Parts: sequence; C-alpha cells; structure tokens
Amino acid sequence: GKTYKIAVIPGDGIGQEVMPCGLASLRAAASRFNFTLDITSFDFASCDYFDKHGTMMPPDWVEILRPFDAIYFGAVGDPARHPDHITLWGSLLQMRRQFDQYVNLRPCRLVKGVPSPLKDPGEIDFWIVRENTEGEYSEVGGKIFEGTEREVVIQETVMTRIGVDRILKYAFDLARTTKRKKLTSATKSNGIKITMPYWDSRFHLMAKDYPEVKTEQFHIDILSAHFVAKPSHFDVVVGSNLHGDILSDLGPAVTGTIGIAPSGNINPEGKWPSLFEPVHGSAPDIMGKGIANPVGMIWAGQMMLLHLGEKEAAEAMLRAIDTVLGRADGNVLTPDMKGKGTTQKLGDAIAEAV
Amino acid sequence: GKTYKIAVIPGDGIGQEVMPCGLASLRAAASRFNFTLDITSFDFASCDYFDKHGTMMPPDWVEILRPFDAIYFGAVGDPARHPDHITLWGSLLQMRRQFDQYVNLRPCRLVKGVPSPLKDPGEIDFWIVRENTEGEYSEVGGKIFEGTEREVVIQETVMTRIGVDRILKYAFDLARTTKRKKLTSATKSNGIKITMPYWDSRFHLMAKDYPEVKTEQFHIDILSAHFVAKPSHFDVVVGSNLHGDILSDLGPAVTGTIGIAPSGNINPEGKWPSLFEPVHGSAPDIMGKGIANPVGMIWAGQMMLLHLGEKEAAEAMLRAIDTVLGRADGNVLTPDMKGKGTTQKLGDAIAEAV
Ligand SMILES: CC(C)[C@H](C(=O)O)[C@@H](O)C(=O)O
Ligand SMILES: CC(C)[C@H](C(=O)O)[C@@H](O)C(=O)O
Repeated sequence: GKTYKIAVIPGDGIGQEVMPCGLASLRAAASRFNFTLDITSFDFASCDYFDKHGTMMPPDWVEILRPFDAIYFGAVGDPARHPDHITLWGSLLQMRRQFDQYVNLRPCRLVKGVPSPLKDPGEIDFWIVRENTEGEYSEVGGKIFEGTEREVVIQETVMTRIGVDRILKYAFDLARTTKRKKLTSATKSNGIKITMPYWDSRFHLMAKDYPEVKTEQFHIDILSAHFVAKPSHFDVVVGSNLHGDILSDLGPAVTGTIGIAPSGNINPEGKWPSLFEPVHGSAPDIMGKGIANPVGMIWAGQMMLLHLGEKEAAEAMLRAIDTVLGRADGNVLTPDMKGKGTTQKLGDAIAEAV
Repeated sequence: GKTYKIAVIPGDGIGQEVMPCGLASLRAAASRFNFTLDITSFDFASCDYFDKHGTMMPPDWVEILRPFDAIYFGAVGDPARHPDHITLWGSLLQMRRQFDQYVNLRPCRLVKGVPSPLKDPGEIDFWIVRENTEGEYSEVGGKIFEGTEREVVIQETVMTRIGVDRILKYAFDLARTTKRKKLTSATKSNGIKITMPYWDSRFHLMAKDYPEVKTEQFHIDILSAHFVAKPSHFDVVVGSNLHGDILSDLGPAVTGTIGIAPSGNINPEGKWPSLFEPVHGSAPDIMGKGIANPVGMIWAGQMMLLHLGEKEAAEAMLRAIDTVLGRADGNVLTPDMKGKGTTQKLGDAIAEAV
C-alpha cells in the first residue's frame, strides 16, 4: 500500500488529549486497509511554544510542513493565556492562507446516538463548502478621526474572481457527485450590494457548465432560518468566508453534532498540504480531566483519509464512529454525551470498531 | 385620549391583504383604550406605483411622511416585476436611512399554539436589537480589473462611533428594563479584525455605565449554534446590521414564528417617524388568495403601540394574538398554520379578542 507523510500538531488544551485517539483510529484503519502513515509530531502552534519562543511557529514553518501529505491538527488557543489574534492568527489562520487551503469543508449529518435538538429533523446529510482565504476576513481597512466623536472605522471585504470561481467550482464538482446533485449558494445581495451580487453573477455563470446540478440561491438570513425549519432540504451549501463560517456552526448545531464535527481545510490541487481538525476548540475549562470527546478528532482523521484517496478506510472509520455512538453505552460515552466514559475509553472503542 | 398620526403603506402583494387586519385590531385597541388613530394611506412604495411613476416614492416623500408619528408598513417588492435593488432600496431601505431608524427591534418569543421546531425550547422570550443604518450594508466599494481574470471586488463595511454607540446604548437601556437584565453582543473579532474589535471595545466601555446589566460576547458562528441549542438563555441580543439581520431571522425560526414575527425600525429620539412592518415579504405566490397570515401585520401594530407609549393597549393586543392562536381553532387559522381559515377570519378573531 501507499505511504502518507502526516504532520501531527496537537496544539493546546484538549487538543493534546484527543490527538492520541485520532491517531489510534487512523492506525487501525491503516493496518486494516494496508497503507502506511508516516507520522511526525510538532510542538508548535501552541501557547507553550509561544511562551518559549515568542512566536507561535518557527520561522521556517512553511518549509517544515510543506513536504507533508496532510496536517492533522488538534486545537489551538487559550484566551486566558494569550489573545486569539496571537494564537489563531499566528498559526491556524496563517496556515489556511499560506497553504492556500481555500476550501473549508464540513459535513452536517445526523449521527446515530446523537440526538438532534429538532423535533423532526428528517434525513440531514449535507456538506458546507466555505471559502477559506478571502472575503470578509481581512486585515484591510482602518480608522479615521480616531479617539474622537467623529471616529469612523472601515473594513474591506475583498473578493477576487480567482477566489470566488475556485470555491464555486469545488462546490459544483462536489454537488455533481452526490445523490441529489443540488447546490445552494448563500449570499445577501439585497443588503450587501457589491461583493454579494458579484458572487451571485459568478455562481449563475458557472451553473451553465453544470447542467446536471440543480442550483438555488438564498439570502443568508432566511437561509439560516431554513437550516432550522427544513435542514433535510440541503445537499451542498456554498458560502463566503463569513457566511460559510456561520452556516458551518449552525448546521452541526441543528444535527446536535457541534461538539463532534470535523473540519477540512483543503487545497484541492494538492500543491500545499491540507489540514484537518475538529471544529471544537482547545476547551481549557475541561483540559486535563480526561473527559474530552475524541469523536471530532477521529472524524477529522476520517476526512483526511477521504482527502488522501483512502475511500474504503474512510468509510470504515465513519461506520466505526456510527457504530460506537449508536450503541449508546453510557460506560463508554464521554460526559458531554451524558455518559461516564473517558476520552481514552471512547477513543479505544472506536479504534477497535475500525 | 391622545391622537396619533399614522401613515399607512400597504405596499405590494399580501401587504395589501394583511393591512386591513392590522388596522382592524389597532382600531379595536384605540376604542377600548381611548386614543385616536388618525390614519392616512399611501399607494407609493409598491410596484404599481413604480410602473406609473418610474420611482418607488414621490420626490417629496420625506416631507410627506415626516409629520407622522409612525409609519405602518405592509410589504414591498416582487422580484418577477422589478429587482430588489429598485423596490427595496427605493423604499424600505431608503426610509430606514433617511428617517435614521437606526434600531431594528424584533421579538423572539414562543407563542401559544405555534409549535417550535425544537424538542425542548424552554422559555424563549428575548429581543434582538440590530443596527439598521450602517455597517456591512453599504454601497461603498467597487471593482478593479473588471471583466478580466484578475478581477478584484471590494466592499467596505463602515462603522462610526456615533452609530455603534447609539445602538449599544439602546440595547443597554432595553436590557436594564428586563427581568433578567442580560445583554449579549454578537461579533466576529477573531476573523474580522478591524470593525468587530472596535464594536467590542465600545461595548466593554459602555458596560461600565450599566453595572446592573450582565454582559456577554459571542462570535456570531457559535452564537448561531447557541440560538438552536439553548435559546432560552437569551434576553437582549445586539448585533451589527448583518449579524442582527441573520439572528433576527434565526431567532424567530427557532420559536416557529418566522411567518408571524414583526419588526420595528425605530428612531428612538422621535426626531423622525419610526416604521413597523411584518418580517415576511410580499409573497407574490399566495397573493390574491385571501390566505395570507395577518398575525405579523397585527403584531407589528402592537409594537407600534408600544413605541407610541400605549403600553396597556399593546399588552392587550399581544394577549389577543396569544389567545386566538392558543385556541388552535382550525376553522380560523390560516393554511400556513395548518388551518382552513382566511386572512379576514383570523384578523377578525384577533380584533374581536382585543
Ligand atoms: C429585504 C432586506 C434588505 C431586509 C434586510 O436585510 O434588512 C430584510 O431581510 C429585513 O431584515 O428587513
Ligand atoms: C477561530 C476562528 C477564527 C475560526 C474561523 O472563524 O474561521 C473558527 O470559527 C472556524 O470556523 O474554524
């Protein structure tokens, strides 16, 4: 079988605790499906590293990480130690940009044993494709009349044709492979009158190249309402950096899986390594107690295998998660799932099931 | 009793159909609580008006509407006839700005007889306070390298100290009057690095003037998830134009009331008339069938009375809505509520109950 070079970055807080579980399941998948994971662990992208070195990552981090096939990332940050603009912008957000991981991909699906907060969720199973490098997240702008009554603060949303087209293309390509072949675009063109109509126009243009994909467009406000009212309607949803960010927390919240959802930061061309992480943060409040839920980390590993092309192994890992959670064994599930298990117990059970 | 001068603008589509119901309930409240509504109706802010005159409103609309104590507004627009940037930006959105209605206020509360999509909604009863004139909704920006591969599109979010402080002040003043005295601020300072931290800093500064108000801040992504996971947590939520827009559709969706929710566009100083409207649009698809749900229009009237200072009458109107919907009489409720009643029947029942 093939060998994949994986950079492992546990990061801060519970990132350190869930990482071993993620690796255990990945190793189980590798031995069963006959491929090799060549793993190198790094201590940077953590508050400890920052305290020692004054930066979140070494100066040559790009060269260090570049040769890897993928980055497997825990969680970073601890607002009590350092503000987000140091920890996040000094690591995760820099990697997203530097490695041109312009796709943020997140699954929204019901998982057996994990109750949705909705009375009647239907069959929820869709993808959110978020633009991950430009748009509303920018450092461009500034202040005038600072410190006075007349203070004006300006921030620029920047979209490029290249940036918009490539994320739309990824979303259309994905929608073409699904059963329902439906793509929903999230904008707000009736309020935000320059960038959003631009996105719409590129979307409509590209739709012509994908006659087999059904398309629809919603304003982000009513789309958020639809996520609650009829989440089973969606198949693939694409949005800008901010809209995608909101929807990719809202979607998992609606399935009840926000604590266990994964996130892929993908450079589809493979020119740079892609990064896979759980959606949850470093959760300093429960750190060190051994009760963090490892499913997000394991599920992120599952997405990584999918990205590496190990389809069967990825399917087995997803089935393993479903099987173990579906058993609803209170001795195995972690406290966030109302069980009395530990990180390790739940992680072992899933690795076992792989 | 007092006399209030009300400008009535039914607008397009079902706006025309629900307006009479709103007025019937308001008249019932006026006669019971002994005040007078001096009503003048206008045909502008509609597609019909646009077809005749080439503009959505007459050139002197500011002078025409200015003397009124409030504007009671139905719904505007019909994308099949004219695009939003003509109908909406030529009427509603212009009024919000010209009349400096910088507060968009929307209630999120469970209504008896209207099922929430959540299994366990708890006691949902909170306000969303949205900045309504600046921020992400702007016409500032443009394109460069237009029509080429290198195309770049820029849109500026503009916040002013005046604009941020006055909406925060409104929200703090409101939070001070509630039972729970809790104010939640929605930002996204870990991604949007100029305007959002500015908003946060003004929020923290103002919090010092309101020691009796408990404050908290969430990023908009996780806040959206909390709206689904624990909506009963919230009391008053304040956000920018875009964040407030999203939350004020999401909140009513979570209570199941998105089809019947009202919206107040308020100039708190009373220098300009405030405008009250249902959240729903003109719904051209069901127009003319007599089945539009009039509750949003009536509830908007209720908010108008609250704004005018007729507290008791407003309470009676809210009770009337609760009573009639709580009866769950299928002969009275409109089809969207799974009844077989009509706009008029439901409207009459509520006016009767006032
Ligand atoms: C129609 C649209 C421009 C408007 C807005 O976003 O302000 C609407 O969604 C609302 O919330 O009143
Ligand atoms: C931490 C934050 C900057 C980040 C984002 O908004 O991109 C997170 O919310 C996410 O979605 O991965």
